[in-house]
Amino acid sequence: MSRTALIAIGGNSLIRAGERGTIDEQLANAHATARALASMVARGWRIVITHGNGPQVGAALLRSERAAGEVYTHPLDVCVATTQSEIGYLLQRAMEFELRQLGLTTPVLTVLTQVRVDPDDPAFTDPTKPIGPFYTKKEADEKQRRLGWNVVEDSARGWRRVVPSPEPQEVFEQPIIHKLMDDGMIVIACGGGGIPVIEHEGHRVEGSEAVIDKDRASALLAAALGVDLFVISTDARQVYVDFKKPTQRGLDRVTADELQQYYDEGQFPPGSMGPKVESALRFVRGSGKDVIITSYEHLVDALDGHDGTLIVPA
Amino acid sequence: MSRTALIAIGGNSLIRAGERGTIDEQLANAHATARALASMVARGWRIVITHGNGPQVGAALLRSERAAGEVYTHPLDVCVATTQSEIGYLLQRAMEFELRQLGLTTPVLTVLTQVRVDPDDPAFTDPTKPIGPFYTKKEADEKQRRLGWNVVEDSARGWRRVVPSPEPQEVFEQPIIHKLMDDGMIVIACGGGGIPVIEHEGHRVEGSEAVIDKDRASALLAAALGVDLFVISTDARQVYVDFKKPTQRGLDRVTADELQQYYDEGQFPPGSMGPKVESALRFVRGSGKDVIITSYEHLVDALDGHDGTLIVPA
Repeated sequence: MSRTALIAIGGNSLIRAGERGTIDEQLANAHATARALASMVARGWRIVITHGNGPQVGAALLRSERAAGEVYTHPLDVCVATTQSEIGYLLQRAMEFELRQLGLTTPVLTVLTQVRVDPDDPAFTDPTKPIGPFYTKKEADEKQRRLGWNVVEDSARGWRRVVPSPEPQEVFEQPIIHKLMDDGMIVIACGGGGIPVIEHEGHRVEGSEAVIDKDRASALLAAALGVDLFVISTDARQVYVDFKKPTQRGLDRVTADELQQYYDEGQFPPGSMGPKVESALRFVRGSGKDVIITSYEHLVDALDGHDGTLIVPA
Repeated sequence: MSRTALIAIGGNSLIRAGERGTIDEQLANAHATARALASMVARGWRIVITHGNGPQVGAALLRSERAAGEVYTHPLDVCVATTQSEIGYLLQRAMEFELRQLGLTTPVLTVLTQVRVDPDDPAFTDPTKPIGPFYTKKEADEKQRRLGWNVVEDSARGWRRVVPSPEPQEVFEQPIIHKLMDDGMIVIACGGGGIPVIEHEGHRVEGSEAVIDKDRASALLAAALGVDLFVISTDARQVYVDFKKPTQRGLDRVTADELQQYYDEGQFPPGSMGPKVESALRFVRGSGKDVIITSYEHLVDALDGHDGTLIVPA
């Protein structure tokens, strides 16, 4: 029986530092990640792929805003939906190509994914996730007044909208994804953390304008699928303690308790490695299975235990 | 054994005449169509849903163009991809809701769909399909010069880009869609006729900037899936001969040969009913199964043989 893994790819990994993020650049980056994932499949892994959408959903919101007087606008949930097939299309094409380079014909499928959130989630009363374009103070005030947006000043680059980032409660398409994985397909799902959807009396209705953290949604899906391994593919080779200090040290293999201790010491910044470590700990503790955090270049070596950070239950 | 059907929904059926096409309007229209489809499922039909994207992909191109100086642009194939999940999301939510109203829990899944086109298709040397916003003569000339676009004057409303509309050759995801249908799921697929993709030496590479007629792609998929019935859901209650003349007459039940004769007489305008009749004839002749052409309001009665136009092999 082959082993199963869920790999969560950062939305930023398709748009690298210094890139404008053209579709050609994103496709080239998708191929680089897909090569590593195809090697994994060649070694007998059955995989599910999830991905973020940070820069892409920001671009989608801006496009909608710039054309607002001429065509209908896209609310945030629809923007998340569109990025699922934008990024899914690039990843799927790259995966299909890289698999065939290795003589594999495993089918790849991108599925629209909705994730249930709780309308009473405290995140809805305290929006914290910056999203979309930067505005001047005047523009931001006007958005706040006219559209009811929450806005914050963002590191001297201007003002920005903030939206709630509620906890993912349930990936609606999980049973289907499970079946497709069992049938030998590679599924690309849960793009951008999934479309946040609120349920009333058993009926799904559109969520408030919110986004779900893709690592949290991925950890939830990985646990529900019962995969053997959860991989967080990021731009860092390893999880580091004393990051950017002379004493910086990469973690090779760490137990959940050890990692929790580093986390409690404040070793991992909230905006970057923090949420990944949190999601990794949730998965390891909930499932008793391992997590690898590494970048795509080091993924194959990490599977052999020679690179990346391996997080084990105990 | 329950009967199977593929229903092709017009992209225009989500944006009605006189509507601006807000997402709320499109969702309300999606519910109206979904109610008819849910009734069909309640009567024991297993269904696959496809849809057009005319107004939606035009809006997507315009959004991309208006934000072009600020964020990366979306080429046409990516715009088609984004409309697959934009419209799929609305249709899926509407279907899930309307099914549950009838006590049904049939799972619904939206899948990204790529369709192979032939690079030697004559359509590539003769682009005819108008797409996207209207331009002034000056703007159109500049697009032509700078981007190599083909442009045409469109019925006194201005100039417009035209793109190739090649024949669909193969729906790549068809085997998976078939399996999902057999497993009892409702699949939403082939949005906007599918993303046109060209294959070189067995590898999929991005198609030229083209769009595929959604009725042609739907007929191809319906035949490959071997469904018992192909439904073209449009804004007309029936197929008419002598349309808008005093002698206008709706067709209740017609054989392929009779319909072909009307087609050859020029009864069906190329821009509207013509391509639907063509796709219906292809399916009926290729599969020996029936086609219904009607609007969603009359679909349930049409299944009983009391409304719409039924096209039979002989």
